[in-house]
Amino acid sequence: MKSPAAKSPQVLTTRAELRAAIRAAAPASLGFVPTMGALHSGHEQLFRQAREENELVVISIFVNELQFNDQQDYQRYPRDLQADVQVAARAGVDLVFAPAPQEVYHAGTPLIRLDSGALGRMYEGASRPGHFDGMLAVVAKLLHYADPGQGHYRAYFGQKDAQQLVLVRRMVADLDYPVQIRAVPIVRTAQGLALSSRNALLSQRQASAALVIHRAIELIAGRAARHEPLYLEDAVGLFQMEPEVELDYFVVVDPDTLQELAFNCQDTPFTGQGLILVAATVGGVRLIDNQPI
Amino acid sequence: MKSPAAKSPQVLTTRAELRAAIRAAAPASLGFVPTMGALHSGHEQLFRQAREENELVVISIFVNELQFNDQQDYQRYPRDLQADVQVAARAGVDLVFAPAPQEVYHAGTPLIRLDSGALGRMYEGASRPGHFDGMLAVVAKLLHYADPGQGHYRAYFGQKDAQQLVLVRRMVADLDYPVQIRAVPIVRTAQGLALSSRNALLSQRQASAALVIHRAIELIAGRAARHEPLYLEDAVGLFQMEPEVELDYFVVVDPDTLQELAFNCQDTPFTGQGLILVAATVGGVRLIDNQPI
Repeated sequence: MKSPAAKSPQVLTTRAELRAAIRAAAPASLGFVPTMGALHSGHEQLFRQAREENELVVISIFVNELQFNDQQDYQRYPRDLQADVQVAARAGVDLVFAPAPQEVYHAGTPLIRLDSGALGRMYEGASRPGHFDGMLAVVAKLLHYADPGQGHYRAYFGQKDAQQLVLVRRMVADLDYPVQIRAVPIVRTAQGLALSSRNALLSQRQASAALVIHRAIELIAGRAARHEPLYLEDAVGLFQMEPEVELDYFVVVDPDTLQELAFNCQDTPFTGQGLILVAATVGGVRLIDNQPI
Repeated sequence: MKSPAAKSPQVLTTRAELRAAIRAAAPASLGFVPTMGALHSGHEQLFRQAREENELVVISIFVNELQFNDQQDYQRYPRDLQADVQVAARAGVDLVFAPAPQEVYHAGTPLIRLDSGALGRMYEGASRPGHFDGMLAVVAKLLHYADPGQGHYRAYFGQKDAQQLVLVRRMVADLDYPVQIRAVPIVRTAQGLALSSRNALLSQRQASAALVIHRAIELIAGRAARHEPLYLEDAVGLFQMEPEVELDYFVVVDPDTLQELAFNCQDTPFTGQGLILVAATVGGVRLIDNQPI
């Protein structure tokens, strides 16, 4: 159900317009949410949190070619600005920045690269070479575009992309961007599938098969909550029963460093803190999920 | 001769103090000059240009370990804050930011590296592996610290470090820092030696021998001005007559891309535009110089 009084946000396409609009508003606080569009309730959750916490809410919609390691994946990434603006309006977004590629990469492909190092080569980075470097390249720019210069500046990222969140936090610390990074919890369907723009590419049968991801997470998270041994191989076993779903990794890592936690003795009860990270492919569509334990 | 009315700048050591002081001043324009201290008339020239062009002038004094590839070079780099503040006062600097290493690298050694790529591996980069990446790592931070958030923001770099200037300009474009980079011409002694903090490490005899750098530049620049063939080997020959001076490179490059210009036919008159880049070592002290032609 749509909110009846949704006011349409202002849509801007150049850096100069965005800067002028932000400077004119001179907000005491600004919440910024960078997105690649194809907005769904997961994004809406980010917008709503930004809306609650800030005077001005700015989002960007930009499908960043640099973070796709597969040109076909870039081409087929869903794009629908009109629908996206409606989602933004519903969540009370003030400004939508939707630039063309040449507005962002005005100086050509960056020659000074942001190298995400070891943190960026693990997990998603292993499967998608260059992905995180490309993501940082655009976030480094976008965080400058939306900087209000005065007052509080907060940027919102989904917990769903856990590795991205760790890397963005680290970039902000290493380059000392004047922004506070806020994490927003994962939003799931009633059945448990983590919301993603890529879900739109799944058939109903594939979406149903993909629920194994959530079942596997719940299995292990339940054991962790009860301080039982985790037996991760049982989670892997669930995937083997869904031939349409190809598991890439199912690991438990340190939430800050992303280092895999060693379970030296399989029968040891789980007592510490960790983060379950999962990636799987369904019908050629890559899905990720995670859960703190 | 000192200016009689030199007002002492405010010296700040934390990022929070610097930010507060800049926000309190709320200048219509801010000129920022990052330095490693050991200030001489070359720096003074940068401060004076910043002073002429801006309402508030901020400099930083920070010997950045990350850009030294030689720990001994880092240790022996001259440090004298009191003398530096006097130079700053003479040039009308308002704020001096002089942080400790742990204030700048508060999150430890950066995990997200700025990779200067091919541009950073040529010339000075070839002789000093990691130097430019380390330089960019600290400039990326400092440009955030001094950002006034409002009004004009300009940062000043010496033309003497030509390759550094090209890389900083490129980083600012690639990451879209909201700052204008201004280049300030080389300052030389009456004899022609380009001013450098490292000159203090030279004996009088070494300083005299080092003048061959300027003689070689003048020889080639003169030929270029007269549209004669350059015969760079004659410049190299001058160095061979100064055994105390070890030539690293003497090249003519494209001023923007730093690509070496090819002289396919030695006898071709020089007609285009270029930049002479020179590096040499005298008594273990590395000196660089350059000259547009």
